[in-house]
Amino acid sequence: MSHAPTVVIENFYPCLDGGRHPVKRVIDEPLDVWCDIFKDGHDVMSAVLRWRLTGSRRWFEAPMKPTENDRWHGQCSFAKAGRWEYVVEAWGDTFRSWKKTFAVRVQTQDPDVPIEALEGARLLREAGKRARAAGVPTAGTQLEDCADLLTSVKATDLMDVLLSDEMQSLMDQYPDRSQSTTSDTLKATAERERARYSAWYEFFPRGAEGRSDKHSSFRDCLGRLDHAAHMGFDVIYFPPIHPIGITARKGKNNTLTAGPDDVGSPWAIGGPTGGHRHIEPALGTEKDFVWLVKEANKRGMEIALDFALNCSPDHPYVKDHPEWFYQRPDGSIRYAENPPKKYQDIYPLNFHCDDWRNLWKELIEVVQFWVDRGVKIFRVDNPHTKPVAFWEELIGTIQRKDPDVLFLAEAFTKPKMMQVLGKVGFTQSYTYFTWREDPKALTEYATELTRSDMRWYYRANFWPNTPDILPGHLQNATSQMFRIRAALAATMSSSWGMYSGYELCENDPYPGKEEYDNSEKYELKQRDYNQMGGNITAFIRALNLIRRDNPALHLYDNLSFHGADHPQMLCYSKVTPDFSNRILCVISHDAHQPAIGMIHLDLAALGLDGSRLFKVTDLLHNQTYEWHGADNYVALHPNGMSMHVFRVEQ
Amino acid sequence: MSHAPTVVIENFYPCLDGGRHPVKRVIDEPLDVWCDIFKDGHDVMSAVLRWRLTGSRRWFEAPMKPTENDRWHGQCSFAKAGRWEYVVEAWGDTFRSWKKTFAVRVQTQDPDVPIEALEGARLLREAGKRARAAGVPTAGTQLEDCADLLTSVKATDLMDVLLSDEMQSLMDQYPDRSQSTTSDTLKATAERERARYSAWYEFFPRGAEGRSDKHSSFRDCLGRLDHAAHMGFDVIYFPPIHPIGITARKGKNNTLTAGPDDVGSPWAIGGPTGGHRHIEPALGTEKDFVWLVKEANKRGMEIALDFALNCSPDHPYVKDHPEWFYQRPDGSIRYAENPPKKYQDIYPLNFHCDDWRNLWKELIEVVQFWVDRGVKIFRVDNPHTKPVAFWEELIGTIQRKDPDVLFLAEAFTKPKMMQVLGKVGFTQSYTYFTWREDPKALTEYATELTRSDMRWYYRANFWPNTPDILPGHLQNATSQMFRIRAALAATMSSSWGMYSGYELCENDPYPGKEEYDNSEKYELKQRDYNQMGGNITAFIRALNLIRRDNPALHLYDNLSFHGADHPQMLCYSKVTPDFSNRILCVISHDAHQPAIGMIHLDLAALGLDGSRLFKVTDLLHNQTYEWHGADNYVALHPNGMSMHVFRVEQ
Repeated sequence: MSHAPTVVIENFYPCLDGGRHPVKRVIDEPLDVWCDIFKDGHDVMSAVLRWRLTGSRRWFEAPMKPTENDRWHGQCSFAKAGRWEYVVEAWGDTFRSWKKTFAVRVQTQDPDVPIEALEGARLLREAGKRARAAGVPTAGTQLEDCADLLTSVKATDLMDVLLSDEMQSLMDQYPDRSQSTTSDTLKATAERERARYSAWYEFFPRGAEGRSDKHSSFRDCLGRLDHAAHMGFDVIYFPPIHPIGITARKGKNNTLTAGPDDVGSPWAIGGPTGGHRHIEPALGTEKDFVWLVKEANKRGMEIALDFALNCSPDHPYVKDHPEWFYQRPDGSIRYAENPPKKYQDIYPLNFHCDDWRNLWKELIEVVQFWVDRGVKIFRVDNPHTKPVAFWEELIGTIQRKDPDVLFLAEAFTKPKMMQVLGKVGFTQSYTYFTWREDPKALTEYATELTRSDMRWYYRANFWPNTPDILPGHLQNATSQMFRIRAALAATMSSSWGMYSGYELCENDPYPGKEEYDNSEKYELKQRDYNQMGGNITAFIRALNLIRRDNPALHLYDNLSFHGADHPQMLCYSKVTPDFSNRILCVISHDAHQPAIGMIHLDLAALGLDGSRLFKVTDLLHNQTYEWHGADNYVALHPNGMSMHVFRVEQ
Repeated sequence: MSHAPTVVIENFYPCLDGGRHPVKRVIDEPLDVWCDIFKDGHDVMSAVLRWRLTGSRRWFEAPMKPTENDRWHGQCSFAKAGRWEYVVEAWGDTFRSWKKTFAVRVQTQDPDVPIEALEGARLLREAGKRARAAGVPTAGTQLEDCADLLTSVKATDLMDVLLSDEMQSLMDQYPDRSQSTTSDTLKATAERERARYSAWYEFFPRGAEGRSDKHSSFRDCLGRLDHAAHMGFDVIYFPPIHPIGITARKGKNNTLTAGPDDVGSPWAIGGPTGGHRHIEPALGTEKDFVWLVKEANKRGMEIALDFALNCSPDHPYVKDHPEWFYQRPDGSIRYAENPPKKYQDIYPLNFHCDDWRNLWKELIEVVQFWVDRGVKIFRVDNPHTKPVAFWEELIGTIQRKDPDVLFLAEAFTKPKMMQVLGKVGFTQSYTYFTWREDPKALTEYATELTRSDMRWYYRANFWPNTPDILPGHLQNATSQMFRIRAALAATMSSSWGMYSGYELCENDPYPGKEEYDNSEKYELKQRDYNQMGGNITAFIRALNLIRRDNPALHLYDNLSFHGADHPQMLCYSKVTPDFSNRILCVISHDAHQPAIGMIHLDLAALGLDGSRLFKVTDLLHNQTYEWHGADNYVALHPNGMSMHVFRVEQ
């Protein structure tokens, strides 16, 4: 460095693992940056926040402002999707420092005023030179004229000009940064808005028509797409669409022996007709798939694929690359197991094999293959059983080429692993929401997800069910419990999803397990999507339309909880930063008993003036109430007005 | 990297600014290291903590243990002073993982037991090979024999051997680390114990004899040394000993005009006889100084010099290196000022001048000059007015050559600057203790210093007074207030210091200022160190001897506060980690009124069993009481039993 290092710039917030991982934003979403800035001596400081798309030469810049105790604040946002980097540049501001002491000198009639006026004139002239160099000769002249005055006129007569906002603003345009210090570089990832705000609907394309006697194909899926669009979803997620293995194929209800007509689990990928780059022939062709992707797009939706790194014993990799699998001492390939559980239809890949570089490359190319066919969202199956470094490389490689591609991590595992997958790049993540039913536990968990440092890298996607999970509270449950869980998922997080059949309140568990009986994973399932009893399609549609109409529900880290006296009652709000849109939910987790009691609003969190009336409009029931103050009475009845999703206005 | 990256190792504690700054320890002091360790899949993990003197090839190693939620703990310590580095190495433990699933297989009579036994045999044989490679053929044979058994005997008969602690311990000696991951490198600084535990006594050598009519010399200092040794101090700190400027020399009480006999401020360094490498002729010669250093060492003490980077207008630098100073527009050199205050006798150095590299080098060489003459401790004057990067370079350069050299930062400034000076290398730091008199504020501040993350880099040295500061509570105060402040300083922190005259309870303020009247900074001061009235020499000696006898008072980050009903009463303890030494202090900050009331002990912090009696022995008054339980009655009287420093035993 040509000049002596000067300014200390440290203690950034947010800052993930010392800057190792990027913070997440969506395009144009503001990022507030905080750090400590100070230097030796008594100089007045100036600082700017600078940011650029990584690799670009063009920096954006915004001034930072001091708050208290040497803490500074700045704000940036990212104009397009991609990997960004940002730094803080700070310097002792010679003009501000001079001005501050010069004013004292003039006031105390310091005999050094004339010589210090010369010093000020020098600073003004140098700024003038910088203005000329920047191609603004008028500013140059203005600054030089002021310098001339300062050395010719009595300084006291010039103080008004020198201390004016106009003069400072002019000097701020041409500051002397020759002695500035630049901080370490921090990273941010900007993604398109769907990274944060999305509603997912999962269905098996082979079951699109709801017939147990016929394997549906992509060409049969339009009805399902229309149904999902009607319900207000924007992401259609398909379990794996690739050829399904024949060897050790599972039968109905995960039995070890499949009959000749059994369709097998889509997660046992690879057969005689190909592997991860191919399509199960019964579903159609690649052309059919691309057609369906476009049909979804026409309906304002997109199709997400399942990226499941399982190989059936019939997968082409097994023959072509046996070195990519675990060999047993007898030379056979090890199937998946978690003793005593065995999964004979699946061979796990060995990500640490000697040929790992080629294996990783191939798998990344598989994703790119589907990206090239129009798929921009992937739901990743069990990422926690593959190396974290692999995901960092995969997501980085794909997003460098196409930053619009999004990844949802299906890691139902220990907290630290779930978190690090978010840190290394997964756009969204499944959560423990599916099992959090106690209002207190749910409050704590949702607060951790949206208000702790997780908010910077982990975007929770709330699912009330999946093909793998029919949680206890939904087993043999009434439609009211299905409504409750959907409402919680859809309003607490900006992203939620459900697996088809949820709208029909399917509730039959496999005995003794948290799974569906006659799971669609292993068979073609008969379904009447138009059945009248227990169908909550209209309710789901109402939820998604409320989400669409209310920008507060598009944001992730704006969830606030409010007090509620009844132990089963949850009361929470989401608001936009400017309070132009405010949603307040009051939901009882009890599907059978009424919940009646007082709620206690945090009026500040809602941006409400406690001295004035405010209006709450239930968007589910289209009723408006006038409330006053923090404490209000709410009565929820399972078979009547069972929950409130209010818009709040004052 | 030759193998695929595997383990995630992150979220270290302690960790200063993402690992940018070292944590501080003294030699052999344990450092507890915490981090998250996990990887994909279900492998059982193993991890070690490794550390070495930076630049050395020899690594030390200790196993780490999992606690909960993927958090691991290890401990290291540093055998000699210097800069150290440490890493965590972790790997999926193939043998532990195999053993765990193999036990399940045997138990469930899995038909794969024989083939999995082959796998286990392979792991044992590979460990055997590593044992032989490590030169332990007996272990090799033992492991290979076990492998042979595993493939010949029925596995069920071998489970006792396989699952034995002996076998695991043998395997742990020869683990397969070929797929291990090593964390980022963290840094630690180890210093000699005096870095943490020290008692400082500051006096002006020119006033050693306490005569206003005679400038004392180094040869006159033995009486002062003996006096300090008697009081139990171990560091003697001298204000600058260099030639004092003549131009613009300050007179008594900081007046602008000095008379012919005025001795000037030692901080206005540099005159016709030299600068920072020279000694004020009136104090003696370099030889005299080296003699005095040795005399101090003989008494178990060492002499600390003041490193004050001020130059008088007569400093040789001014003539030889005018480019190192700030030039005013008229070509004159700028003196120090903080308008409207002016310090015409001092020229500040311009650390950012064009020739900054040579300036910095010269100043570092000045420190090395005195290190070479036996000075191992420096008190640094106003480090916050010089670049932080300069101190990092200076301390790093000096300590790389001689890691026993210690630095005390005299930065009375804003919190962040004080903190960063500790982070970049200052061994100890002055604090706001001097002004904290409200028991609540003092409790909060001492807790922040010793229990927050500051504990890892900031060692507070508590001073009740300095030549610059006679705080309000000591102005015209009785000797009891001097006792109170000395006791608080000496027992709350493991390092404390006082400026001579404190033991005489000198309490005359300069009117309207927080300074001494007739300050010794500007004149030779008459003092009778043997005066009887108000002399608290014996009390100071008692404090320092109690410190010496009680290891709990040698530690820094072990301060705990206990409840006290009386608002002026402070109750706190320091204990050794094994509770073999426990000190409990009860001190009232009121020098005039009695403080009587209950204290409420945190028995767990004291390691006491609440169901049994315990003994508290007042080490100041040599009285023992038997107490029971958390709540005890204490009566403090300013003119009698005015404070307790208890040793606690049970």
